[in-house]
Amino acid sequence: MKTGTHQLQDLACHIGGELRGQADYLITGVAPLELAQSGDITFYLSGTLRSTLQSSQAGAVILSPQAAEDFVGNAIIVANPYAAFAKILHHLFPMPRHEPGVHHSVQMDRDVQVHPETRMDAFVRVESGAKIAAGVWLETGVFIGANVEIGAGTHIYPGVKIYRNCRIGERCIIHAGAVIGADGFGFAEENKKYIKIPQVGGVQLGNDVEIGANSCIDRGVLTDTVLGDGVKIDNLVQVGHNVHIGAHTVIAGQTGVAGSTHIGRYCRIGGQVGIAGHIEIADGSVIAGQSAITHSLRVPGVYSGVVPAHEITRWRRIAARFDGLDTLFRRVKLLEKKSASPASSDGELLNGE
Amino acid sequence: MKTGTHQLQDLACHIGGELRGQADYLITGVAPLELAQSGDITFYLSGTLRSTLQSSQAGAVILSPQAAEDFVGNAIIVANPYAAFAKILHHLFPMPRHEPGVHHSVQMDRDVQVHPETRMDAFVRVESGAKIAAGVWLETGVFIGANVEIGAGTHIYPGVKIYRNCRIGERCIIHAGAVIGADGFGFAEENKKYIKIPQVGGVQLGNDVEIGANSCIDRGVLTDTVLGDGVKIDNLVQVGHNVHIGAHTVIAGQTGVAGSTHIGRYCRIGGQVGIAGHIEIADGSVIAGQSAITHSLRVPGVYSGVVPAHEITRWRRIAARFDGLDTLFRRVKLLEKKSASPASSDGELLNGE
Amino acid sequence: MKTGTHQLQDLACHIGGELRGQADYLITGVAPLELAQSGDITFYLSGTLRSTLQSSQAGAVILSPQAAEDFVGNAIIVANPYAAFAKILHHLFPMPRHEPGVHHSVQMDRDVQVHPETRMDAFVRVESGAKIAAGVWLETGVFIGANVEIGAGTHIYPGVKIYRNCRIGERCIIHAGAVIGADGFGFAEENKKYIKIPQVGGVQLGNDVEIGANSCIDRGVLTDTVLGDGVKIDNLVQVGHNVHIGAHTVIAGQTGVAGSTHIGRYCRIGGQVGIAGHIEIADGSVIAGQSAITHSLRVPGVYSGVVPAHEITRWRRIAARFDGLDTLFRRVKLLEKKSASPASSDGELLNGE
Repeated sequence: MKTGTHQLQDLACHIGGELRGQADYLITGVAPLELAQSGDITFYLSGTLRSTLQSSQAGAVILSPQAAEDFVGNAIIVANPYAAFAKILHHLFPMPRHEPGVHHSVQMDRDVQVHPETRMDAFVRVESGAKIAAGVWLETGVFIGANVEIGAGTHIYPGVKIYRNCRIGERCIIHAGAVIGADGFGFAEENKKYIKIPQVGGVQLGNDVEIGANSCIDRGVLTDTVLGDGVKIDNLVQVGHNVHIGAHTVIAGQTGVAGSTHIGRYCRIGGQVGIAGHIEIADGSVIAGQSAITHSLRVPGVYSGVVPAHEITRWRRIAARFDGLDTLFRRVKLLEKKSASPASSDGELLNGE
Repeated sequence: MKTGTHQLQDLACHIGGELRGQADYLITGVAPLELAQSGDITFYLSGTLRSTLQSSQAGAVILSPQAAEDFVGNAIIVANPYAAFAKILHHLFPMPRHEPGVHHSVQMDRDVQVHPETRMDAFVRVESGAKIAAGVWLETGVFIGANVEIGAGTHIYPGVKIYRNCRIGERCIIHAGAVIGADGFGFAEENKKYIKIPQVGGVQLGNDVEIGANSCIDRGVLTDTVLGDGVKIDNLVQVGHNVHIGAHTVIAGQTGVAGSTHIGRYCRIGGQVGIAGHIEIADGSVIAGQSAITHSLRVPGVYSGVVPAHEITRWRRIAARFDGLDTLFRRVKLLEKKSASPASSDGELLNGE
Repeated sequence: MKTGTHQLQDLACHIGGELRGQADYLITGVAPLELAQSGDITFYLSGTLRSTLQSSQAGAVILSPQAAEDFVGNAIIVANPYAAFAKILHHLFPMPRHEPGVHHSVQMDRDVQVHPETRMDAFVRVESGAKIAAGVWLETGVFIGANVEIGAGTHIYPGVKIYRNCRIGERCIIHAGAVIGADGFGFAEENKKYIKIPQVGGVQLGNDVEIGANSCIDRGVLTDTVLGDGVKIDNLVQVGHNVHIGAHTVIAGQTGVAGSTHIGRYCRIGGQVGIAGHIEIADGSVIAGQSAITHSLRVPGVYSGVVPAHEITRWRRIAARFDGLDTLFRRVKLLEKKSASPASSDGELLNGE
């Protein structure tokens, strides 16, 4: 990816790294380590193959002191190369500047409070009582329901819908198509029909929250659904009513969290995980993708329940054996008893079970 | 959550319950049992911890005759506390009133039939031949395709898209971002390329159906995809072409139903369930979340295939054992044969397998 | 489904099939084999019950030479009945004609390049630098970001959002609510906070790609996410940043592909599959629905990891046994050693483990 032209020493300075090599080397692009060419800056993370670093054609590499000897060319040495590279990218590719202003097609109710430093693109709709702080960018076709509050610097991508009475923090990013504050899923049965439980709570997102495309965060029943500061949610994630997610927890794509569950701070949750309702996940828990969390995890740790795929005929033989697994345990127990007392008769053993 | 001020006896009357305690007690809010304070009304369901009820600070509790002795304060005694509480909430938090009227930005084709008691918000588009009945509310940015029919009292949230020729019943609720009537997924292979199978059927939703945010109900190939009366679908659910879902069946978030499957009436299906195509699910079936339904369920019952997560090193040892499971069964069988006839030689046993 | 009136011989001619029976028979509808009546045309695939064909009331059936004897009525005999039926449907139900033209409510920046043979419906927004080729149809409320290129004949359904700098091929179909080019999910940790990794790559879709409703294709970090020609993606699918999907691969609903994974050509991937990041899937691989692919599949084959649901009490007994599975293997091994050398003592055996 082409960038403008930057002296390597300026980039090193920007991230507070130690420059090794040609200070006035000109960086003109960024690329992954294995594709980077002369003029490109890239980064190396421990865990990646060292030979990829050693043979890299990159113009400059951001790397850790431990890896510094494995690359002979220009380098910027930092303690945390990934964070440093993130900063370089923010520097080289600043977000497209969004001039404040409200497009003529925007439809706002009269009693909306909008900071003059706000940008609203075409076909945005803002309903009665909403409050939009400074630096907010509502992209094309965003829907902001009644009494919604949006904190300063938040960026909402096209087609996001935020239902009434939700509160979004500062510097949040909400990607296209996400739905914040739809009704939680609750019904009471009466006379063989379902009566809808009105969902009169809302949603609160803290500061620096990111929500992925087409994800859904349901409003609470009587109180709010709450996502803490710095929570990062990937695409197509479902968060049920009254869920609490602690600060700085990260959840990958297509995971679902059922209602009233409390997830701690600093958790890392993989994709397609299913988390049951009304349980608690301890701070700092790590959950592998596709796992089912059916009970509370009270001890922080790394959890998995993923069943890796096999060649199908082999897998079918395995899966067919699940049926007999419970009796297999009993059969083995019986063998063990027999083996321990070879003289006993079967009849006696069965009585002893 | 604050409400207006209501006398307890009026609420008891509204739900037809027996009032116990101070008839003119003033209710000013609602809250969950464990958070409710003076002035709040709440409810208690059997199965919840009794001590939570006994120690509740609530101003009044809706509860069953069986639980009445566990709370000394004001109470409304009813047979079905959850349904009663739903009715109280509908009473205390009526849906925001939507005055009929068509926003000036709405784009309707000329031959659309719209009842005068309809409300359409900004940026709604209604295509040729559509019929919109009384009391329908199309919120901001809703798309109604050609010849779509929407029954009386149906409420469609912002950004819902309904493709041509679909029929939506009365009093339905369709949440933001849902897509009704996109093409089913069908291709014929020819010369190593795929030819699209045109999906010329439609979608029919019965009365009182609710569809969650960003869920997708595909149109049928030659006939319609059909959801019966009272079906409730949560967020991010996928319903394939030609699926039939019987009346009053409930499906939780992120579940997928593959094409041409018939699900019975009064089923309860958890989240992230995968249901294969071309199968049948008996009326009244209950399926636990994250289960895979690969064959027809002809007998109503409760089904599960969920694999609960474990601490990861322990789980890896377990999952690694799946590979040997089939041979383990044979090894145990061999041991059993040996044990049954201790004199026989290994060779003979193997011949006997 | 009613069609216009067509002579059977014209339909046979259209698909290059051999007509058997009444050449001037009038076809007036299409229906599935089991529902088809006089006047209807349908098709029969090998694998379907023969008795269904034998007893069909259809006016005409498209079938293979092998099946020709099982139906006595009018028939069109072709090598590939499913592909032939697809062509008949395209013939009988041509896509609604979309006259070129730009609706007056469309908002385009000045430097957009739009071919005059383009159609844009209400509330479409096209940002600066975008290029829209001939025959493109942007339906209501579509968002096209800056510098996006859309190839000739591509049809984009209502409410699709395409972020800046993405490239869409020719004759693609993108269903309602899909999001192309949202940020991939990448963060660097520093001082117990997450720094967003700017996602400066884009998305490239080849020609003849179809993307399902509400699916998400993330943009790449430094290079593009790439879907080859003829790739077909169902609804609610998540494709992570820097994924490559080879030509003519088909992915069913709710499947997720994590970042940087390369999927080969002509793969067939079921619904709700989870594919880990940074792995490779060989050309022609077939993956059953709900499987977890945690490692590269280097050999083409059919893979599954689906755990079929059971009656719940039975399943709970099975799932509970997973906990002891690892020790069960050791217990069996111990029994085998004992059995092999009946004279040895337990102590010796354990030393030998």
